[in-house]
Amino acid sequence: MKALVLEKAHELRLRDVELPLDMGPRDVKIRMHTVGVCGSDVHYYQHGGIGPYVVEDPMVLGHEASGTVVEVGAEVTNLKPGDRVCMEPGIPAADSRATLEGIYNLDPAVRFWATPPIHGCLTPYVVHPAAFTFRLPDNVSFGEGAIVEPLSIGLQAAKKAALKPGDVAVVVGAGTIGAMTALAALAGGAARVILADLVPEKLALFDSNPAVTTVDVRGTDLAEAVKSLTDGWGANVVFEASGSARAFEGIVDLLCPGGCLVLVGMPGGKVPMDIVAIQSKEVRIESVFRYANIFPRALALIASGQVDVKPFISRTFAFTDGVRAFEEAAAGRAGDVKIQIEFPQGAEA
Amino acid sequence: MKALVLEKAHELRLRDVELPLDMGPRDVKIRMHTVGVCGSDVHYYQHGGIGPYVVEDPMVLGHEASGTVVEVGAEVTNLKPGDRVCMEPGIPAADSRATLEGIYNLDPAVRFWATPPIHGCLTPYVVHPAAFTFRLPDNVSFGEGAIVEPLSIGLQAAKKAALKPGDVAVVVGAGTIGAMTALAALAGGAARVILADLVPEKLALFDSNPAVTTVDVRGTDLAEAVKSLTDGWGANVVFEASGSARAFEGIVDLLCPGGCLVLVGMPGGKVPMDIVAIQSKEVRIESVFRYANIFPRALALIASGQVDVKPFISRTFAFTDGVRAFEEAAAGRAGDVKIQIEFPQGAEA
Amino acid sequence: MKALVLEKAHELRLRDVELPLDMGPRDVKIRMHTVGVCGSDVHYYQHGGIGPYVVEDPMVLGHEASGTVVEVGAEVTNLKPGDRVCMEPGIPAADSRATLEGIYNLDPAVRFWATPPIHGCLTPYVVHPAAFTFRLPDNVSFGEGAIVEPLSIGLQAAKKAALKPGDVAVVVGAGTIGAMTALAALAGGAARVILADLVPEKLALFDSNPAVTTVDVRGTDLAEAVKSLTDGWGANVVFEASGSARAFEGIVDLLCPGGCLVLVGMPGGKVPMDIVAIQSKEVRIESVFRYANIFPRALALIASGQVDVKPFISRTFAFTDGVRAFEEAAAGRAGDVKIQIEFPQGAEA
Amino acid sequence: MKALVLEKAHELRLRDVELPLDMGPRDVKIRMHTVGVCGSDVHYYQHGGIGPYVVEDPMVLGHEASGTVVEVGAEVTNLKPGDRVCMEPGIPAADSRATLEGIYNLDPAVRFWATPPIHGCLTPYVVHPAAFTFRLPDNVSFGEGAIVEPLSIGLQAAKKAALKPGDVAVVVGAGTIGAMTALAALAGGAARVILADLVPEKLALFDSNPAVTTVDVRGTDLAEAVKSLTDGWGANVVFEASGSARAFEGIVDLLCPGGCLVLVGMPGGKVPMDIVAIQSKEVRIESVFRYANIFPRALALIASGQVDVKPFISRTFAFTDGVRAFEEAAAGRAGDVKIQIEFPQGAEA
Repeated sequence: MKALVLEKAHELRLRDVELPLDMGPRDVKIRMHTVGVCGSDVHYYQHGGIGPYVVEDPMVLGHEASGTVVEVGAEVTNLKPGDRVCMEPGIPAADSRATLEGIYNLDPAVRFWATPPIHGCLTPYVVHPAAFTFRLPDNVSFGEGAIVEPLSIGLQAAKKAALKPGDVAVVVGAGTIGAMTALAALAGGAARVILADLVPEKLALFDSNPAVTTVDVRGTDLAEAVKSLTDGWGANVVFEASGSARAFEGIVDLLCPGGCLVLVGMPGGKVPMDIVAIQSKEVRIESVFRYANIFPRALALIASGQVDVKPFISRTFAFTDGVRAFEEAAAGRAGDVKIQIEFPQGAEA
Repeated sequence: MKALVLEKAHELRLRDVELPLDMGPRDVKIRMHTVGVCGSDVHYYQHGGIGPYVVEDPMVLGHEASGTVVEVGAEVTNLKPGDRVCMEPGIPAADSRATLEGIYNLDPAVRFWATPPIHGCLTPYVVHPAAFTFRLPDNVSFGEGAIVEPLSIGLQAAKKAALKPGDVAVVVGAGTIGAMTALAALAGGAARVILADLVPEKLALFDSNPAVTTVDVRGTDLAEAVKSLTDGWGANVVFEASGSARAFEGIVDLLCPGGCLVLVGMPGGKVPMDIVAIQSKEVRIESVFRYANIFPRALALIASGQVDVKPFISRTFAFTDGVRAFEEAAAGRAGDVKIQIEFPQGAEA
Repeated sequence: MKALVLEKAHELRLRDVELPLDMGPRDVKIRMHTVGVCGSDVHYYQHGGIGPYVVEDPMVLGHEASGTVVEVGAEVTNLKPGDRVCMEPGIPAADSRATLEGIYNLDPAVRFWATPPIHGCLTPYVVHPAAFTFRLPDNVSFGEGAIVEPLSIGLQAAKKAALKPGDVAVVVGAGTIGAMTALAALAGGAARVILADLVPEKLALFDSNPAVTTVDVRGTDLAEAVKSLTDGWGANVVFEASGSARAFEGIVDLLCPGGCLVLVGMPGGKVPMDIVAIQSKEVRIESVFRYANIFPRALALIASGQVDVKPFISRTFAFTDGVRAFEEAAAGRAGDVKIQIEFPQGAEA
Repeated sequence: MKALVLEKAHELRLRDVELPLDMGPRDVKIRMHTVGVCGSDVHYYQHGGIGPYVVEDPMVLGHEASGTVVEVGAEVTNLKPGDRVCMEPGIPAADSRATLEGIYNLDPAVRFWATPPIHGCLTPYVVHPAAFTFRLPDNVSFGEGAIVEPLSIGLQAAKKAALKPGDVAVVVGAGTIGAMTALAALAGGAARVILADLVPEKLALFDSNPAVTTVDVRGTDLAEAVKSLTDGWGANVVFEASGSARAFEGIVDLLCPGGCLVLVGMPGGKVPMDIVAIQSKEVRIESVFRYANIFPRALALIASGQVDVKPFISRTFAFTDGVRAFEEAAAGRAGDVKIQIEFPQGAEA
C-alpha cells in the first residue's frame, strides 16, 4: 500500500510499504479522506525524532485523520460501512490501571500513530478500534473531522483549567495549538481570550471574534494589557501554548489570585520557575498530554457552531503531493495554521 | 422619595415613602436607571409572600437594577460619580463564616432587596456598598445591566454544574430563569442545549441559535429527544428550571451515567425522588440559591458577545407606569420574558 | 464443583454445579479462602430478587471474596501462583464509553458476581481477570481481604463526598455499609463522625473510637446532637446509609450551608425531597453505585492501620456450614455486622 | 506593655512598647498564654527580613498564639470572657474581591502578625477580631492551640491536594511544616505518608506511626523507595515541604500518572522545572500561601484525636526567657520541632 514514509530526517517519500490490515472483531476498516500535518510530523521530518522518540526505521507519518468506514468487525455496533468518521490516534491497553482510572492517555503502553515505532495513517486504508472511531455529524466536513485532533488538545487544556463561566483567559502563542486552545477556552466558558503572539498574520485570524483581544507582543506589553483588561485583578487562566521558555518569564504576573496556569506548549529544556511567586497567588498549574474522552466533545462543538475551525484550515494538498505539503509546512509561513492532505476519493467511494 | 410600594397582596402603589440614604465610607449613591420585574416581585404582588417570607409592612419592590453613581464614600476607590453600574441586591455580614468561605449568598444574615422586611430598589435613588456595585462596560446598556441579576442565577447554575467543554445540557423550562440558564450553559461550556417548555413563543426566542434544540413537550417526548441527540448516552447535565414537580418525573432518565442534575426552579412542595435511579447512574445533584461572585462574570460575558440577553428584554415601562408594568407581568403573556421599568433621566443627570 | 446455590427464594443448597474455569491470557485462577455474606446475598435468599434483578435460574451466591492464586494466564505480569488476593466482583466491557471515562462501575454491560444471571463466587475455585484481582499486603488477613468489598462502598462514598480535612460527617445507619462508611469518612478526612442508629449493639462497636460520636436515635434527637457538636453550623457531609425513607425527613437540616448529602443506602420506593430546603443551603447531593478504582485504596488503608475492619468481622462459618451462615445472617442479630464463610485449605494449599 | 521586640537583625529585646488595645464592637481582648516560635520569626531575627519584607522599624515578633478572652466587643456573640482560644494571625479587608471569593489569605491588604510593618503577638495582651478567634475544645491545651497555626499550613496543603481516601503521599522535608503536612495528609485521606529528610532525629518522631514510612535520604534513594512502596505506580501526591531547590530534582519521577505536586516549602531563587516531564504525567501542581478557613478544622482534628501534635512541641520557655527561646530556635537542634513561649498566668487569670 502507498504511504508517506519518513525514511530518516529530511527524507520523506511516497512509496509502497507493507502495512497489516487484519481486523479484530471490535475494529473497523477506514478509507482515509483527510489527514492534517501536525507540528510533530514536521519535527520528525526535520529532525528525525522528538526528545526520546527517535525514528530508527522508516515510519509512516500522520495522525490527524478522517475518512469513511468500509468494513466493520463482527462485534461493532456503533458504526457501519459508509459512516464518515474521524479517529483518535492513541490506543491504550484495555485493562491498564491508567485506562481504568479514565486517564488512558497516560497509559505507558499507549500505541500512538506516528510516534516511533508505530506507523501513522498517511496511507489510503487503516484498521482502527471502533471505540476510538467517531462518526462525523452531517454538517461536519472531512477537513473539520481531521482537525478534531489538535482541537482536542485545546479542549483537554480547557477541561483541565476547569474554567468557570465568565473567566478571562490568556493564551500565549497563536500557532495551531494556541489557536485551538483559544477556541476551546471560549467554548469552555471564557468570556474573553487575550491571545498573544508575535506573528500578526496568526493573530489576524481572530480579528472578527469580538471575544478575542489579540496582543502583538513585539509592540505591546502583555502584562499591561492583561492588567488593563481585568481592572488590575489578572486573568483567571493562562494557557502557555508557545512552548517557548521565554514565555514563562513573568507569566505568574498575568494571573489573578487563585488563578490557573495550563502547560500546553512543550519547551525544549528545563524552565526556571519562581515558586514563591506561584505560592503568593496560590496558583494551580495544570498540564496536558494529548487528551482523553475528548473527540466526541470536539465534534459536538463543531457541529453546534460553538467552535468554528474552518478559518484555521489554511491549505489542502493532494496525497500525491504529500511531500510538498510537508515542505510547505516545514517552511512555516506566517499565514499557515493547518495544512491538510486529501486522498483521492474514487469510484469505490 | 417616590417608590413602588407593595402595601399588601394585590395592592401596589407609586407613592412617597421614607427611605434612608445615609452613606457609609465604603458606600455609593446611585441614581436608578432601569429595574427589571422579577417573578418573585410578581409573586409578592399577587400573594403577599413567598413561603416563609411574608410582607407584613409596606415594602418597596425591585431588585434587578442598574443606574449611575452620583456620590461615593470616602474610602471608595473602584467607582466614581458618573459611572454606569449595576448592583448585586444581597449584602451579607462581612465577617460571617459563610462570607469568609466564599459562599456569602448562604449567609443567614444576608439583607436582600425586596425580600421582607428589606425594601427593594424601585425608587429613584439608593445607597449601596461599593463592593456590590459593578461598573457597566461601555457596550453594555442599562437594560442589559438590569438583566445581569437573573442571568447571574443561570451562571451560578452553570458554575455549579461544572460543565466540561462539549457537554450536552438539557434545560427544563424556558421562562426567564430557564432562558438565562440556557444562555449560561452555552457560555459555560455546553456544545448544545436542549431546551424544553410548553410555550412555543418562549422557545421561539432561541430559533436563531444553532446550538439550542428546542423541544415543545406538548408534542414531543423529551426523553426520546435527548436519547436521539446523544446517541443514547444521555445528557451530561440537566438544569431543572421550571419549578414544576411534574418536571421531576423521569428526569434522571435524561442523564448519562455520571451526569449532573442542577436544581434551579423552586417547586412548591416536596417532590418524590427515585433514589435508586439516581444511584444507578451515580448522579450528582447541585442546587442554586441566588449567586456569589457572579456579577462581574455576567458583565464580561455580555460585553464580549458570548451572551446576548437583548432578545429577552421584552418590554419597558416608565417608572410612572410601574403599577401597569406589574399588571402586565402578572398577566404572564406567552411572549414576555423580561419586563423592565425605566426611570426618567432628567436634567439632573 | 461444589457451590452454594440459590435455587429460588428460601432454598439454598450446597451442591455440585457446573461452572466454567476456562482461562484467558489475562486471567488468573484463584482458590477461594473467605467469602463474606452480603446483605444483597441475604436479600436474594429471602426474596429471590432485588428490584429488577430476579433469580430465574439457580445462581451461586457470594461476591466478597479473597483467596490464593493458583494459576496465571500467559500475559499476566502482576500476579503469580501463591499470591494471596482479593477480587473486585464486577467486570465491565473493556472499551465501553463508561470504562474509558473511568466510571466502569456504571457500564451497563458490567458482569457482577451474584447479580442474576451471573453466578457468584461461593465455590472453591474461580477464574477472574488479573486486572480486577489485588494482592493482599502481608499484614492483611484473608478475612480482611474479603471485607474489602463493602469497605470499598464506604470509600466510594467518601471519595464522592470530596471530604476536606477536618470535616464533620454524619453517617445515618450503622449496619455493615454504614459502619464501613464511618471508617471510610474518618480515613478520608473527617475530624469526627456522628453515627446514628437505633441498635445499641451496632453503635457500641465504635465506643473505643474517640473520633466517633454515636447517637441512639431512639432516645436522642439527631438534629440537636449535630447542632450541638457543630456550634450550630451543621455537618459538612451527611452519608445516608440506612436505606430508610424515614431517614430523609429533615436530613437537610443536619447540613451546613454548602454541605453535601451522599446517598449510600437504597430506599425501596420514591422519597419525598424538599427541593427548596436543599437549595437554601446549596446542598450538593452525591450518589454511590458500587465503586471504581477503590480496591487498592482499601487495601492500603487496612495495611497502614488507618482503617481497622477487624471488629466488624463478627462470625465465621465453614463452607460446609454455608447454609447455616445464611440462616444466621438472615436472622439479623443486633451484634452481627459481617458474617464470613471460610473454605477448607487442604494439603494442596 | 512588655513585648519581644526585634530592633533589627540579631537584636531582640524584651522591653516596653506602646501597642494600641482599642477594641471595635466585633473585637475581643485576649490575655496571651502560649506563642510558638516560627521559622519566619527566626528568619527575621537572623536576617532582618524575608525577601521583600524588611524590618525597618522595631517590630514585635510572634504569630502562633493561644490565650484567654478577657473582654468582648458589644456585637460579639460567639465568644465570652474566660474562653480559651487560639487566633488566626492574618486579617483581610472585609469586602475585598479575594475575601468575597473565599480566598481571603490572598487579599493583598491582609494584615498579618509579625510581617512588617505589622506587630506580632509576643506581648501579654492583644485585641483581635472575634471572627478570627477560635475557642479551644476542652481537651485541647494552650500549647496545642498555639501549634494550630503551622498545622493549618499543612492542612491547607492537604486541602489543596484534594486527597482521595487511600492515596499514597510523599512529604519531602520533616521540619515543622513538613511534620505538620505529614500529619495533615494522613488526617486528610492518605493511607500512607513516605516522609523524607536527612535529619534522623526529625524522622524518628514518626517511628511509632505505622502509616508513616520514613526515608533518610542520606542513605536511601527516595525514588526507589516510592517505587517499591507503590508497585511502581508512583505516589498520588508529593508535598514539597523542604524549600530546598535540590528537592525538585527528579521530583516528578515520584508521582503516578495524574498525580499532584503541592508546593509548600519556599525555595530562595528560581527552580528549574522539567515542563515536558510534568506534562507526560499530566501532573497537577498546587501551591499554598498560609491558609483560609482552616483553624476550626485543625482544632476539630486535634480534639478528636485524628491529629496528635503533642510530640512536636519540643520545648517551652517562659516569656521572660523569650530571647533565649529565639537563640535556641536559631541554633536549630536536630531534635527540635516546635519551641514555644509561655506567659505567666498570674492572679488576674
